Amino acid sequence: MPEKIVDAWGSSEVKIDAKLISQFGLKQFSQDELKHYKHYLFERGIIVAHRDFGLIDGRIKNKQKFLQVTGIAATGPLHLGHKVDVDLFVYLNSLGAKSYFVVSDIDAYTSRPSSSVPSMEAAKENAAADVADLLALGVEKSDIYVQSRKEPRYYEFAFELSKILTENEIKAIYGSLNPGKIAANLLQYADILHPQLKEFDGPMPSITGIGIEQDPHARAVRDIAHRLPYKFFSPSFIYFTHLPGLQQDKKMSKSEPDTAIFLGDSAKDIKRKINKAYSGGKDSVEEQRKYGANVEIDRAFAILNYHHPDTEFVNDVREKYSSGKMLSGELKQICTEFLTEMLAKHQEKVEKSKTTAEKIVYG
Amino acid sequence: MPEKIVDAWGSSEVKIDAKLISQFGLKQFSQDELKHYKHYLFERGIIVAHRDFGLIDGRIKNKQKFLQVTGIAATGPLHLGHKVDVDLFVYLNSLGAKSYFVVSDIDAYTSRPSSSVPSMEAAKENAAADVADLLALGVEKSDIYVQSRKEPRYYEFAFELSKILTENEIKAIYGSLNPGKIAANLLQYADILHPQLKEFDGPMPSITGIGIEQDPHARAVRDIAHRLPYKFFSPSFIYFTHLPGLQQDKKMSKSEPDTAIFLGDSAKDIKRKINKAYSGGKDSVEEQRKYGANVEIDRAFAILNYHHPDTEFVNDVREKYSSGKMLSGELKQICTEFLTEMLAKHQEKVEKSKTTAEKIVYG
Repeated sequence: MPEKIVDAWGSSEVKIDAKLISQFGLKQFSQDELKHYKHYLFERGIIVAHRDFGLIDGRIKNKQKFLQVTGIAATGPLHLGHKVDVDLFVYLNSLGAKSYFVVSDIDAYTSRPSSSVPSMEAAKENAAADVADLLALGVEKSDIYVQSRKEPRYYEFAFELSKILTENEIKAIYGSLNPGKIAANLLQYADILHPQLKEFDGPMPSITGIGIEQDPHARAVRDIAHRLPYKFFSPSFIYFTHLPGLQQDKKMSKSEPDTAIFLGDSAKDIKRKINKAYSGGKDSVEEQRKYGANVEIDRAFAILNYHHPDTEFVNDVREKYSSGKMLSGELKQICTEFLTEMLAKHQEKVEKSKTTAEKIVYG
Repeated sequence: MPEKIVDAWGSSEVKIDAKLISQFGLKQFSQDELKHYKHYLFERGIIVAHRDFGLIDGRIKNKQKFLQVTGIAATGPLHLGHKVDVDLFVYLNSLGAKSYFVVSDIDAYTSRPSSSVPSMEAAKENAAADVADLLALGVEKSDIYVQSRKEPRYYEFAFELSKILTENEIKAIYGSLNPGKIAANLLQYADILHPQLKEFDGPMPSITGIGIEQDPHARAVRDIAHRLPYKFFSPSFIYFTHLPGLQQDKKMSKSEPDTAIFLGDSAKDIKRKINKAYSGGKDSVEEQRKYGANVEIDRAFAILNYHHPDTEFVNDVREKYSSGKMLSGELKQICTEFLTEMLAKHQEKVEKSKTTAEKIVYG
């Protein structure tokens, strides 16, 4: 009953282990695959499982065209958790993918509470800010679209999907038939599948990176792909673990700002949030020197692990911190400096991307 | 409980009388209004009631702009029943309306059984044939659109409506939450309301002609208009009685071809169908001469009443037939000749409209 374990619309953290992976019918990456994909997201256990990655692997190794599709909902400012999705997208793009990055303005409005996204106008403002972040993170301008500015064939296709989806199917995934969520689904499934229409790139393997809590959607869209008359490939998926929230037992979330470092945070915000972040270090200097830290639960370490590009450096920090050679305060200092520099540079790029971003959203 | 009386998706005939009109909260036309609108659809009791026609009446009399929106589902060939909607549309257009005629290809596919519309391709083929008929009936090329070829703002708006519609509302209208019917609704409500968006003509009174069995939709869309942040006018509606089917107790229906004269029927088809049509004449010549016919139930007479442009002629036939001066066979002969000539001319125009129609549907 995977639907009971995960909540596609919820905000609690899901622990991913070998048992969950096998229960979901996912596959772990082989040593060969991990060796081939030298990005730190693969090397550091952040990307943990897949469905049909072999199709994509074959395409990459034979230098054949393949698709990748990723999206974010335009519900507010992006945080470090989103950056993981974007970093993966930029990496797969560099491997030769024909890439689609959707910023979901319509479904952000139709599926979220009005307290979060009160109007389509608000969704578009969020979208413009998010697109500027994407551009600054290295997503190509021509790969980004918003749901409200697409070709008619895209919308026709989204509505077509309503003929294929059954009431029971939707109920099984959501437990409800809220019209706004049904509309969001039609759009999300269209986002993932429409690149395979002949009016776009035609049928071919596609890859999407998601968190495991999104797996009910992944399974639904893979099934739907075969029930359409278009000879689609079942989309492939890779699953990553979420960067944990700064506090205990919560994932980074737009709706709970103190759980996350946002890409627009100032040096002062960063310092304060990292200082307060949940630590795996011991309570006293003496104990820390003697027993070392539990890096697995340490939030400052997690940020380095998910975002610092230098794997040797991250391994060195892990060794020193877990053995007690490094104190929690020192680690937090390293993390704060790293983030401050990275985000200051990012924010400079965002400023330069704003005009392009507004063109993408408003035309 | 109007929902129990009428079935927005059914095919049985609804009798409209003063009691039903008042039960639905509709208004009858005043003598003044009927005098002003000299079209035979008003004069012959075919248009029976309205909601807020006064708004439109005022605009017409003050030569102000107003909107009209009408549509047909692209489920197959058009019949004489559809021609009534189209004739009304052409008439209101001549009174100064900014007119929108939607040929619903997407919702025909998503809301009808696959046995009726098996694919979007089939829906588009139906649409192309229907558009050729519309052009031949005098609808202006620039007033026609298909749902699959619109501006992005139209689709965005259709999805926006999913945020406003509640599960309970949809259940109250349909008794079910079938995703394909929900999608059809979003599009239909967008069809009626989108002309009032600022990206189209902006807020102003609009008029739509419907059968009374569509009133649950009319009430829903009037209510929705006020729950959107766009300062829309509640759309006005006028209600016509349906041209009855050729057989007893059935309305003209695409899904039951023998109930209807199609606009593409040959002289031979017309002759056969009218000969078999349900008659209000008496069983023998003697009885007919003595008692006269019941014109109210006579299908050949109904066709003249709904379609013959010459009211004096129709009144003359009514008088002779109901008094027994005219026999059923003579009436059927008149009706057959009228239809044969009218449809032969129509079919010639359809031939000339086909290229334009395909451009409208396929671009």
